[in-house]
Amino acid sequence: MNILVTGGAGFIGSHLDDALLEQGHEILCVDDLSLGSEDNIRHLLGNRNFHFHRMDITKGNALSDLMKDKNVQCVFHLAANSDIQQGAVNPAIDLERTFMTTYKVLEAMRLNGVKDLVFSSTSAIYGEKAKAIPEDEGPLQPISLYGAAKLCSESYISAYCHNFGIRAWICRFPNVVGDRSTHGVIYDFVRKLNQDPKRLEVLGDGKQHKPYIYVKDLVSGILFCWQNSHELLNVYNLGVDSETTVTEIAEIVVDEMGLKDVELAYTGGDRGWKGDVPFFAYDLNKVHALGWSASRTSNEAVRHSVRMFLANRKK
Amino acid sequence: MNILVTGGAGFIGSHLDDALLEQGHEILCVDDLSLGSEDNIRHLLGNRNFHFHRMDITKGNALSDLMKDKNVQCVFHLAANSDIQQGAVNPAIDLERTFMTTYKVLEAMRLNGVKDLVFSSTSAIYGEKAKAIPEDEGPLQPISLYGAAKLCSESYISAYCHNFGIRAWICRFPNVVGDRSTHGVIYDFVRKLNQDPKRLEVLGDGKQHKPYIYVKDLVSGILFCWQNSHELLNVYNLGVDSETTVTEIAEIVVDEMGLKDVELAYTGGDRGWKGDVPFFAYDLNKVHALGWSASRTSNEAVRHSVRMFLANRKK
Repeated sequence: MNILVTGGAGFIGSHLDDALLEQGHEILCVDDLSLGSEDNIRHLLGNRNFHFHRMDITKGNALSDLMKDKNVQCVFHLAANSDIQQGAVNPAIDLERTFMTTYKVLEAMRLNGVKDLVFSSTSAIYGEKAKAIPEDEGPLQPISLYGAAKLCSESYISAYCHNFGIRAWICRFPNVVGDRSTHGVIYDFVRKLNQDPKRLEVLGDGKQHKPYIYVKDLVSGILFCWQNSHELLNVYNLGVDSETTVTEIAEIVVDEMGLKDVELAYTGGDRGWKGDVPFFAYDLNKVHALGWSASRTSNEAVRHSVRMFLANRKK
Repeated sequence: MNILVTGGAGFIGSHLDDALLEQGHEILCVDDLSLGSEDNIRHLLGNRNFHFHRMDITKGNALSDLMKDKNVQCVFHLAANSDIQQGAVNPAIDLERTFMTTYKVLEAMRLNGVKDLVFSSTSAIYGEKAKAIPEDEGPLQPISLYGAAKLCSESYISAYCHNFGIRAWICRFPNVVGDRSTHGVIYDFVRKLNQDPKRLEVLGDGKQHKPYIYVKDLVSGILFCWQNSHELLNVYNLGVDSETTVTEIAEIVVDEMGLKDVELAYTGGDRGWKGDVPFFAYDLNKVHALGWSASRTSNEAVRHSVRMFLANRKK
């Protein structure tokens, strides 16, 4: 199958490239390298089934032309702004990078008769919730601009499915950790501890607790849903049943870096930044019933990611 | 209070102007007159509390400048593409007219510290549902591009409330009928019967059944929610408990036009067009509990609107 992956040089996108190539597909990897990096796909550049196109998909007709030229049959759309905190400073970022990218993908698919779309959505569309939420419940009241732009994307995907015969798989991700990640709490903690190995600033009270999924588990879940669910619009929460507190992440990072007697200095409050949520839990019954579950727990995912991150930094 | 009404020369917007002026507010009516009309506000042009500004709010900083110059305290945002069927032909219309108008309003409010927003949303955000839905339930899977763009607007409003201290009232409307309406099923039926008083083409099988609310009832509901609900984000379904079939609408129009022996020619199928839903029902418990309900039933609303429409055409 000829598959186009937007954001294919990004953290999750590049792991998805790996998995799709292993399944024997031909991959058109599209990325503007604003957040993605050639380092993530360097190992694939010699593969004859892998083709990289540096492209800003929001500009002009380049994406549509590529779909037409290369006879694309399926799109995995992962391109988005992944710096959630930036969204609250400048709302135009998520509008352009997280929503308009989706609109451009949908229009290019409509104009070229491309029928299958797999989309990376997020737990952030649920906003702040007191309990684990199944896929078909509401309300959907995102509190971050990133979550808002992802819910916009889901809305448009739903309407395109019903109006233009597109089939879609919407996978909602929790926090994702693993090698090639270039931001997030693990990244921040390592950077801070390199600067000051005696004191670690922790945003909030450290009690924020969320499920963290290992990136390869996530990719296996995405592919499982795509291959085993056959509705017009297939929506799945992907995640792990367990969770990790921010303090636990700090302790794992300190431990893996071989540090001792590090003071954890909390900035206080129940959340790290405006738009953050203090805790989050998914209802995973739907994807478990389909036959998939993650291989690593949240704590295992965090510890493994810290190890990979530290090992890669030493190279 | 200095209140800005976008889409203020439109069908619903102009009735809202009337009601807000009656309450003693100063009204800045903004409209690009692409769908609205000066006819709808001509009776207000001499009122010293009413100020009309012809403006495309998606262009440049005109809206933001106006908010600043006039010390706007509250925005009623009604500007949108109201031609739902057009959205499926050209998706850019609802993106620009239904969603980007909302984004521009939110940005202008953020930049000028305007805190209160009342927004006209729609039943179309729920998509196709088997039962009446309360405000806090999902899934939200719109099937029209119009519904998608309204859900995008709600998403962004939610995020702006949580990030930038804006308070919002989101009122979800069903089908709205009444004088000054320039499209929709009543308008179409009258037009068709003027062309051929013996035969009326009815889209679908005529069994589509939905609640229709009279425009002045709707406006009273919007103002009631705004004045009596005080959360950060207040979401209400507005509507009537009763409903009307498309065949009943046809019969009411035929009756009010004084016609006899009109053949109703159904195009068939369970819906009028792609993106239409065969039936729709709201759960109105929340707004009823707040203390508001509509004064006219769905059938009364339809008959009264047909009468007003015919009377205005004769002028």
